[in-house]
Amino acid sequence: MKRIGILTSGGDAPGMNAAVRAVTLKALHEGLEVYGINYGYAGLVAGDIFPLSKDDVLDMIQRGGTFLYSARYPEFAQEPAQLAGIKQLKKFGIDALVVIGGDGSYHGGLRLTEHGYNAVGLPGTIDNDIPYTDFTIGFDTAVSTALDAIDKIRDTAVSHERTFIVEVMGRNAGDIALWAGVAGGAEEIIIPEKKFDMAAVAEHINSDRQAGRKHSVVVLAEGVMHAPEFAEELSKYGDFHVRSTVLGHVQRGGAPTARDRVLASKMGAYAVELLMQGKGGLAVGIENNQITYHAMEDLFDSKHKADMSLYDLNRDLSH
Amino acid sequence: MKRIGILTSGGDAPGMNAAVRAVTLKALHEGLEVYGINYGYAGLVAGDIFPLSKDDVLDMIQRGGTFLYSARYPEFAQEPAQLAGIKQLKKFGIDALVVIGGDGSYHGGLRLTEHGYNAVGLPGTIDNDIPYTDFTIGFDTAVSTALDAIDKIRDTAVSHERTFIVEVMGRNAGDIALWAGVAGGAEEIIIPEKKFDMAAVAEHINSDRQAGRKHSVVVLAEGVMHAPEFAEELSKYGDFHVRSTVLGHVQRGGAPTARDRVLASKMGAYAVELLMQGKGGLAVGIENNQITYHAMEDLFDSKHKADMSLYDLNRDLSH
Amino acid sequence: MKRIGILTSGGDAPGMNAAVRAVTLKALHEGLEVYGINYGYAGLVAGDIFPLSKDDVLDMIQRGGTFLYSARYPEFAQEPAQLAGIKQLKKFGIDALVVIGGDGSYHGGLRLTEHGYNAVGLPGTIDNDIPYTDFTIGFDTAVSTALDAIDKIRDTAVSHERTFIVEVMGRNAGDIALWAGVAGGAEEIIIPEKKFDMAAVAEHINSDRQAGRKHSVVVLAEGVMHAPEFAEELSKYGDFHVRSTVLGHVQRGGAPTARDRVLASKMGAYAVELLMQGKGGLAVGIENNQITYHAMEDLFDSKHKADMSLYDLNRDLSH
Amino acid sequence: MKRIGILTSGGDAPGMNAAVRAVTLKALHEGLEVYGINYGYAGLVAGDIFPLSKDDVLDMIQRGGTFLYSARYPEFAQEPAQLAGIKQLKKFGIDALVVIGGDGSYHGGLRLTEHGYNAVGLPGTIDNDIPYTDFTIGFDTAVSTALDAIDKIRDTAVSHERTFIVEVMGRNAGDIALWAGVAGGAEEIIIPEKKFDMAAVAEHINSDRQAGRKHSVVVLAEGVMHAPEFAEELSKYGDFHVRSTVLGHVQRGGAPTARDRVLASKMGAYAVELLMQGKGGLAVGIENNQITYHAMEDLFDSKHKADMSLYDLNRDLSH
Repeated sequence: MKRIGILTSGGDAPGMNAAVRAVTLKALHEGLEVYGINYGYAGLVAGDIFPLSKDDVLDMIQRGGTFLYSARYPEFAQEPAQLAGIKQLKKFGIDALVVIGGDGSYHGGLRLTEHGYNAVGLPGTIDNDIPYTDFTIGFDTAVSTALDAIDKIRDTAVSHERTFIVEVMGRNAGDIALWAGVAGGAEEIIIPEKKFDMAAVAEHINSDRQAGRKHSVVVLAEGVMHAPEFAEELSKYGDFHVRSTVLGHVQRGGAPTARDRVLASKMGAYAVELLMQGKGGLAVGIENNQITYHAMEDLFDSKHKADMSLYDLNRDLSH
Repeated sequence: MKRIGILTSGGDAPGMNAAVRAVTLKALHEGLEVYGINYGYAGLVAGDIFPLSKDDVLDMIQRGGTFLYSARYPEFAQEPAQLAGIKQLKKFGIDALVVIGGDGSYHGGLRLTEHGYNAVGLPGTIDNDIPYTDFTIGFDTAVSTALDAIDKIRDTAVSHERTFIVEVMGRNAGDIALWAGVAGGAEEIIIPEKKFDMAAVAEHINSDRQAGRKHSVVVLAEGVMHAPEFAEELSKYGDFHVRSTVLGHVQRGGAPTARDRVLASKMGAYAVELLMQGKGGLAVGIENNQITYHAMEDLFDSKHKADMSLYDLNRDLSH
Repeated sequence: MKRIGILTSGGDAPGMNAAVRAVTLKALHEGLEVYGINYGYAGLVAGDIFPLSKDDVLDMIQRGGTFLYSARYPEFAQEPAQLAGIKQLKKFGIDALVVIGGDGSYHGGLRLTEHGYNAVGLPGTIDNDIPYTDFTIGFDTAVSTALDAIDKIRDTAVSHERTFIVEVMGRNAGDIALWAGVAGGAEEIIIPEKKFDMAAVAEHINSDRQAGRKHSVVVLAEGVMHAPEFAEELSKYGDFHVRSTVLGHVQRGGAPTARDRVLASKMGAYAVELLMQGKGGLAVGIENNQITYHAMEDLFDSKHKADMSLYDLNRDLSH
Repeated sequence: MKRIGILTSGGDAPGMNAAVRAVTLKALHEGLEVYGINYGYAGLVAGDIFPLSKDDVLDMIQRGGTFLYSARYPEFAQEPAQLAGIKQLKKFGIDALVVIGGDGSYHGGLRLTEHGYNAVGLPGTIDNDIPYTDFTIGFDTAVSTALDAIDKIRDTAVSHERTFIVEVMGRNAGDIALWAGVAGGAEEIIIPEKKFDMAAVAEHINSDRQAGRKHSVVVLAEGVMHAPEFAEELSKYGDFHVRSTVLGHVQRGGAPTARDRVLASKMGAYAVELLMQGKGGLAVGIENNQITYHAMEDLFDSKHKADMSLYDLNRDLSH
């Protein structure tokens, strides 16, 4: 192996650039060459590929987004697109790849591996919804951004004695809601992993108000329902001065936290090591504080599990 | 004058606590006594009034929201409520008042002044929509929060080559949009003070895309229309990969910026000086970098004007 | 057990208040009573003890420092002080304790346990230098603050092509330097756990400069030497336009990060569970992402080990 | 005039990049060409000059430091260097210049103007020590950074009941100390513009401690003396548990605040307008909230004056 390619795929996440930087610097350190591939698999097929030098990545560790761009490209599930991608790898002399993105992007990586081009995947997504890793690159930053918003919203909730429904990202995974909710001292956390009872939520808020605590913050994962809808439903149970807010795309941007930068750096360097050992078709993770890997296939049959102890913890602390 | 009261009214704004602190400390320094009135005019009428000491306010300068709470209380426009409020002032021995809030809250202040209880108003609102002041307490912090969000959203806009419509607060005033837009390098700023032409917006985005700049951020004041609606309208002119986000209540919270703390401190101390000179019915402002005052009545006939030079500046820089 | 006490000891750390909050809320939830003890063991001996209610701690999760104050009190190593403390526990009807601080404060906890008052310790210190825990409460926030400073200093280093020596906290432990250094993309990380060779540092900076990368950031743990001294030594090897900066006490303050708040909340609730099981003399930790405990005595013979893989990682990425 | 050059000089300041961006975009908008000059006057003499396009500056508004680099170059006070610089201007076809930096850099600008190359200066320095402008580019960000540190240090000061001496930048000007001090609720502000009496400082701290307020934060401008020295002097008057911290270079970096970005954008565009009117030898400022200009010569005889009303305000609020 002499030359590796690197691409980012799926929704962007803070720390993707830190991961690209780590892959590049580690590979250069090991005497390899590195090529960047713009726009994920779409750019691979289109040949939007260029050499990466040390100078290209030195100022990248703190930048949000991905300077390699990202794009959806469902066509890569089909063989013609895969073969077109492989043609480009040949043309540019790329022997192996690092793929940063959600587990959707691992499918492409596995196909390339099967065609003889080893690919290693790094979990880059704010949702933390990838199996076989406790944390994804970008999750800690997204939680930090959501928490910052919750802290600010609580100021207004207290001043006006309101109930705020704060919708955070997480379609299938309640992780952002759980972490930002516990850290923000949420009165209630509503997530897809756990059925909730609107009457019980109302009863909780009501009993708090009667005890003199007249503001509440409910952190709601978008996968359950949208905040305005939740607010409307809740208001049927009483006048809790409900307001709703949808945090939205801000959660995807920003300079990565120290955690995310360190995680991205560790994982990026490790991906290069795996490729140097001639391995492919692997997804890197962090489990029990150790960097690990699993076969990409194993992830497709698995489902990420949120840390439900946080749910119970918050229940105990808020009731 | 021996004892002054202080209340916050209308929507909360960062820096209100810093203003309450400054009023309290300055008044104590001058040998006066200070009473806090909870929940604005509603609390005045209800007699929710208590003495404020130095220790109560010392740790308040950096806190968002208002620890005196705020509430809407339209009843205070009527004389019975005003007389009930005056009864409480008598009962608590309060001779004069500082009122912090939007210009709506100045009406109450003027009525109290007419009844012999001097009131001085401080402009506390994030919208910057009060006449005879260049800046309101809370505005700089709101702009800073909006800007932070715009910076983050731009990360995603760049990575995915999208057009983002970012809705910021400002019902009648485009100030937040103008400042955050210029500071965030917005491609377009849409405000109530200036008609816009959707076709021209589309043409601008389109020509940028053709020149290779494939992301755009449009900062939209809520008073014009809502972001999802704008996104839908814009998309009729072409596929610009539009996403929309509504920043919402986060703009009202958070620790105040240095500017807002200094402004609140200056204005708070000045309000006490005016009251000590036996003046009332006055609204404090900052004009041309000087702390000033005007008769409250003069504000009711006036309209705040946004700094439209920012609009022209942004047009020149983004086209 | 009906009533538990809680104190903070040693240097303050962000997240101590979040831990006090969690202990209090969890204990109240379980039907226990909670008493706060001001000024650590000094306040215990002096009887500076008061009941804590839900309302006392609800607004505490985001606050830096410790609202229970902290103080050095070496006298508690002696039996007379311990007996005086126990007298107070009896007087206030306190059956068991949670002690938050460095491992120095665990000695007192163990003595109280031996006298029949179960004590559980939580690791509250920014230095991360406590055995049997991967992370201490406050460490993530301190790293985040140090990183923020490094990011800012790099701006100036780049603009003026300078070499900056940034001294971070860590007397015996290089953890802050390692994490902030990797996350900040430091050219060199100098820690007590690893001998360094000034000539090699100079050679590295020199070769970077010759390759056109004319700025460097060296992150230095205070336990090795002070930044100005390091700068002077380094300058003997060439003119690298060296400047030094000592981050100092800012690293100890600030609102805790999401990580620290979640860690403090988990540990606080767990401490109450251990006490309810009649256990004492235990130190809580987080190991491999699980909340754990060990006998306090085991910690006294052990030494915290920094994650030296970060050192090697940084070497690979920066050379 | 067809082509303008732009350089940054002296110590870097947040917002310099925003100013370069504004100059570039405005000039391009007006049909001019723009050249960047690296390393200030040193780069001018060396011919380190290159064309700037829209794409070069689009992602620059939020970046700290200066991407045009800065360097000290006292040689430019002499005619030979000036003539060498003019030779380069001729060679690159540059007709006029914008110079961003402290008033030291205006001397060079004036010399170039006298030689027929109009130069307009923008005040770029964190110290706010330039005459004929109420604010310099970078000042608001530096105050914000200093304030953030003071807020964090207060956490520790409160927890341990200490007196903290916080040294901020400002050799001849107390502006950073005044603004950050008022905004941080400093118990004392010590600046070069105002003699202080150490005995009175000690007396103030002492009387606060006796009233039960056992922590203090003293904000000290570096131009008066250094923090450790101040701490030592103060401790001669009593044991106030004094600690000192020197904020240092962090104050020079970081993403500029909204204020600084708007100020830089306004001034940058205005500088181009002045050059288009055929004017030179002018220094741009903001006075009473209006963008203004003065002859560079007028600045050399003048002295910046700090807003001493802040000093009096803080005295009233803290005593």
